[in-house]
Amino acid sequence: MAICHKRHGGVDAVSVEDRRVKRLPREVREKQILDAAVRVFSEHGYHEASMDEVSEVAGVSKPMIYAYLGSKEDLFAACIRREAGLLLEAIVAGVDATVAPDMQLWMGLKAFFEFVGGNKQSWRVLHRQVISQGGPFSDEVLAMRSRAITLVDALLVGVATKRGMDEHAQKSTEAMSAALVGASESLADWWLDHPAVPTRTVVAWLMNLVWMGFGDLVEGNVWSPAEH
Amino acid sequence: MAICHKRHGGVDAVSVEDRRVKRLPREVREKQILDAAVRVFSEHGYHEASMDEVSEVAGVSKPMIYAYLGSKEDLFAACIRREAGLLLEAIVAGVDATVAPDMQLWMGLKAFFEFVGGNKQSWRVLHRQVISQGGPFSDEVLAMRSRAITLVDALLVGVATKRGMDEHAQKSTEAMSAALVGASESLADWWLDHPAVPTRTVVAWLMNLVWMGFGDLVEGNVWSPAEH
Repeated sequence: MAICHKRHGGVDAVSVEDRRVKRLPREVREKQILDAAVRVFSEHGYHEASMDEVSEVAGVSKPMIYAYLGSKEDLFAACIRREAGLLLEAIVAGVDATVAPDMQLWMGLKAFFEFVGGNKQSWRVLHRQVISQGGPFSDEVLAMRSRAITLVDALLVGVATKRGMDEHAQKSTEAMSAALVGASESLADWWLDHPAVPTRTVVAWLMNLVWMGFGDLVEGNVWSPAEH
Repeated sequence: MAICHKRHGGVDAVSVEDRRVKRLPREVREKQILDAAVRVFSEHGYHEASMDEVSEVAGVSKPMIYAYLGSKEDLFAACIRREAGLLLEAIVAGVDATVAPDMQLWMGLKAFFEFVGGNKQSWRVLHRQVISQGGPFSDEVLAMRSRAITLVDALLVGVATKRGMDEHAQKSTEAMSAALVGASESLADWWLDHPAVPTRTVVAWLMNLVWMGFGDLVEGNVWSPAEH
């Protein structure tokens, strides 16, 4: 199927009067700056990263970076916001809400680890640098975690409602979602130090922990997506 | 039973010549300084905490703090080292290695949450401030997490060996330990925002998640220490 290239009358004919098209480069430049910033923060950590290097990698002057995205602190916050947004979008897109609850959880965890595996720099900025290097960006990080917990909770409450879990158990799902988000973060961090472990293996380990539990695992009962 | 107050010949009679007894106050002062520092860092975070306030709360002069424990960064690292040591000791002391594996896990998780609940300032310094405020102390934090993962792994491998888990599954225990440590950290953090939830309840939620798994929970099967 050929790509349908839609043309709205006149929009693609840039006239001298139509200055609005001049605003497009700003988005492009902001993307260049953020891409460069993620790379630089990921490599050096917040404190050691320099705006000179971001400027050099992005091919955008420092005054323009300051004008578009503000201080180093603002820039780091913008990186966290963008990468967190992409991560959560990837998880939502990865889950088919019509399949069985265990498969939904499997798909969500797989989408998370695939994102981390394919965007190691994003993950370093989002999580590892935050823990190991620190920086003044509490609001962004807490907001990201809160959104992740809410997302997981919505999935779990969906499961709970479907299977008739009682009210107390439903109240506990937010707590368990917080635990699951922490488990995923921590395992992703461990995975960065053990890159030889395939994505599917690390996801299967976490899935078995949180779906089957240690109680079943020590008895040799395992969960596998292939059986479904 | 009366407290046996041992007297070693001459040691309690402070002579002008015996200057060694003068070294005791250093330990006492270091404890005063660390207690004050944990409180101040916990309240204000690393960046906003001032050495003036630590000095005032501890009742120890700033030059003496610098002489005993070094810079603000060194002092924060010393706080993390001490509090992490106390936390891990509490967990080890809380687990009876002769009981069933699920009860060992229950006891370890209970010891962790009891420590957090009884030492909220320690926990804020150890974990929440590190994430939300940041600071240049990566080595201490990573070392602490690594020790926690090793400790949990030793418990799980003990379980695994006892129940004849195969080699691949045993290799996975380190990954699952990392996940369990992350789950516990994240849930403790959630708990600080929900202080009305009793310790036993929050521990039971985590125990059910990691021992039973969601698969059992959505079917209404729960784990309870009372049954054992």
